[in-house]
Amino acid sequence: MTVRAVYALTGDIRAARDRAEALAVEQSHEFPPELAPAKAAPSRAHVVSVEERGPGLALATVDFPSDLSGNELTQVLVMVFGNCALLPGVRLVDLDVSPELAAAVGGGPALGVDGVRRVLEVPKRPILATALKPVGLPSEDLAALGRAFAEGGIDLIKDDQGLGDQRWAPYAERVPRIAEAVAAGNAASGNAARYLPCFDAPPEHVEERLRIALEAGAGGLLVVPGVGGLPLVRWLARNTPDDFVLLAHPALLGGLAVSPTAGIAPDVLYGLLLRLAGADAAIFPSYGGRFSFSPEECRAIAEGCARPFAGLAPSLPAPGGGMRPDRVPELVDFYGRDVVLLIGGELHREGDPRGTSERFRALVDPLA
Amino acid sequence: MTVRAVYALTGDIRAARDRAEALAVEQSHEFPPELAPAKAAPSRAHVVSVEERGPGLALATVDFPSDLSGNELTQVLVMVFGNCALLPGVRLVDLDVSPELAAAVGGGPALGVDGVRRVLEVPKRPILATALKPVGLPSEDLAALGRAFAEGGIDLIKDDQGLGDQRWAPYAERVPRIAEAVAAGNAASGNAARYLPCFDAPPEHVEERLRIALEAGAGGLLVVPGVGGLPLVRWLARNTPDDFVLLAHPALLGGLAVSPTAGIAPDVLYGLLLRLAGADAAIFPSYGGRFSFSPEECRAIAEGCARPFAGLAPSLPAPGGGMRPDRVPELVDFYGRDVVLLIGGELHREGDPRGTSERFRALVDPLA
Repeated sequence: MTVRAVYALTGDIRAARDRAEALAVEQSHEFPPELAPAKAAPSRAHVVSVEERGPGLALATVDFPSDLSGNELTQVLVMVFGNCALLPGVRLVDLDVSPELAAAVGGGPALGVDGVRRVLEVPKRPILATALKPVGLPSEDLAALGRAFAEGGIDLIKDDQGLGDQRWAPYAERVPRIAEAVAAGNAASGNAARYLPCFDAPPEHVEERLRIALEAGAGGLLVVPGVGGLPLVRWLARNTPDDFVLLAHPALLGGLAVSPTAGIAPDVLYGLLLRLAGADAAIFPSYGGRFSFSPEECRAIAEGCARPFAGLAPSLPAPGGGMRPDRVPELVDFYGRDVVLLIGGELHREGDPRGTSERFRALVDPLA
Repeated sequence: MTVRAVYALTGDIRAARDRAEALAVEQSHEFPPELAPAKAAPSRAHVVSVEERGPGLALATVDFPSDLSGNELTQVLVMVFGNCALLPGVRLVDLDVSPELAAAVGGGPALGVDGVRRVLEVPKRPILATALKPVGLPSEDLAALGRAFAEGGIDLIKDDQGLGDQRWAPYAERVPRIAEAVAAGNAASGNAARYLPCFDAPPEHVEERLRIALEAGAGGLLVVPGVGGLPLVRWLARNTPDDFVLLAHPALLGGLAVSPTAGIAPDVLYGLLLRLAGADAAIFPSYGGRFSFSPEECRAIAEGCARPFAGLAPSLPAPGGGMRPDRVPELVDFYGRDVVLLIGGELHREGDPRGTSERFRALVDPLA
């Protein structure tokens, strides 16, 4: 049961070995090594290797004793990326966790790719998702949109992350209304769409809002771990029905993956860490939209969702952020079929959300 | 009740006005403006001004309708910095929140500077803090350190953020043991030190671990909002005794403030946002230590803790990250008296934590 992390050190790497040693101390003892009591030795992280990869880049591999995690996701996060977050020129670029520890800290996605496909009854083709918005609409309008998207063949119909508990569509009113409308859309069309309410409840409302979502028959949740914390995702994965889909939204959290020389590499954040926390699918800003990831970074994210990691189920990459239906062939070619194609505002063109959804769906049906 | 945010736009600002307009949409409707229904207009954010500040910098001021927050900290965070976090070249550099909304979302620090001084019985001088570490020591060793620091005159004795619920010193064993030792140190010395356990409990353990801390007589908590979420700080501020000190640790969260052209400016993050969440004091990596903030950034953080904001109590800046007692005069000169001077590993020099604490304390006693 060990945790291994790889950090990219940029900038002055003449002293890369020293920087790596300091990093291993920072992330475990955070204590002058010459003063550390011998009995604390088992809790110390150690540098496994330091490889120079060019004039301004070195990769430092650090091993952590798994007992340092206390078998809790919270300490895993502190351990691999706590103070490290404060260091420019240090980026977490890879992570490995033993299957035993991953199981102990939460067990990863309850559904993963296969489970999501099973509950959505979508065995092979790309999964389609959209967002109910804009915030400010009353519940009945959002519900009507939900029904139209369900009838049009969208699989995952999520609240926008900006839908909280505002007066225009309060959570306790909106969630049952939309869930009912999506169910009606399914009944009318034979589709199996799921409604995922936005879940950014403050701690005192977590249980109540989860109960509302469950009683309404929601099919999962849009979670915002940057706001509520990654451990809340894990808690939800462990405290919701077996068929509940957890889709993670990158608000705030994504800020840790923006700098190319600090923070967390996008594939580690959106892929490995969100899988470890229990997300079944991870929304991220795709290349070619309103945001800035390169195609290479996006491909890495998709690989981070899919590649063997800690014995956990793979998750689904959900590229979004300004996607359009006309890009579907390109996106499928790029990401493959195990993908959630998230298209928001563009489905509202022409004032016919059902019609645009049907055309979106027709683009992926040949891949079923 | 309005929220106003200022964003620094860097890079190509020839189209700064367009970028600002797109940002206001991104952070509220996230919907093509030409398609937005008229009835959703009240939930839309608006650009107040765009000021060019040089060839590569513009400041965009955006007003948000306060109803967009739903009176919850979670949505305030999504609103002012949700998708914005994903954008390089956009940085949140200032924030104003109406006192009514700030009160509705939590009310800020329960103690603030004056309250912390009152409960610590330290009316004027800088407050001293240290950390119990390294992780890996058994509870009795950490307790002995706690007693020595209390006897030596340290005011806030916190667990290291790496102390979770590991086998070497399980939370339920460690917290009562250390609290008792600090109380004994106070009794022997006449000091009024407080012990702050590290609180990074996963959701299912939040109430139980808080109960343990309260029953043990802990004087507050070291919270890690980057792990547990800023809303948990707010929840703790509202669900703990009036004299409970909440000290925030920057693990993970601080990664949002590292890039000079993205994320959140350090004074907004460590000052304003942590105050809004309810932290009485905020640890940050000081200039001149192991991390990288400039003196200007550190001064801004101290100002962010102190300046009028949303009618909230000021908080205490807690510079740390490789401080040394011999820098006390310089640090006090720089930060002023309303500061928590956090010195960790250096107090362990010479194998005499009580003696080094006494000497640390003697440096600030003349300022009482």
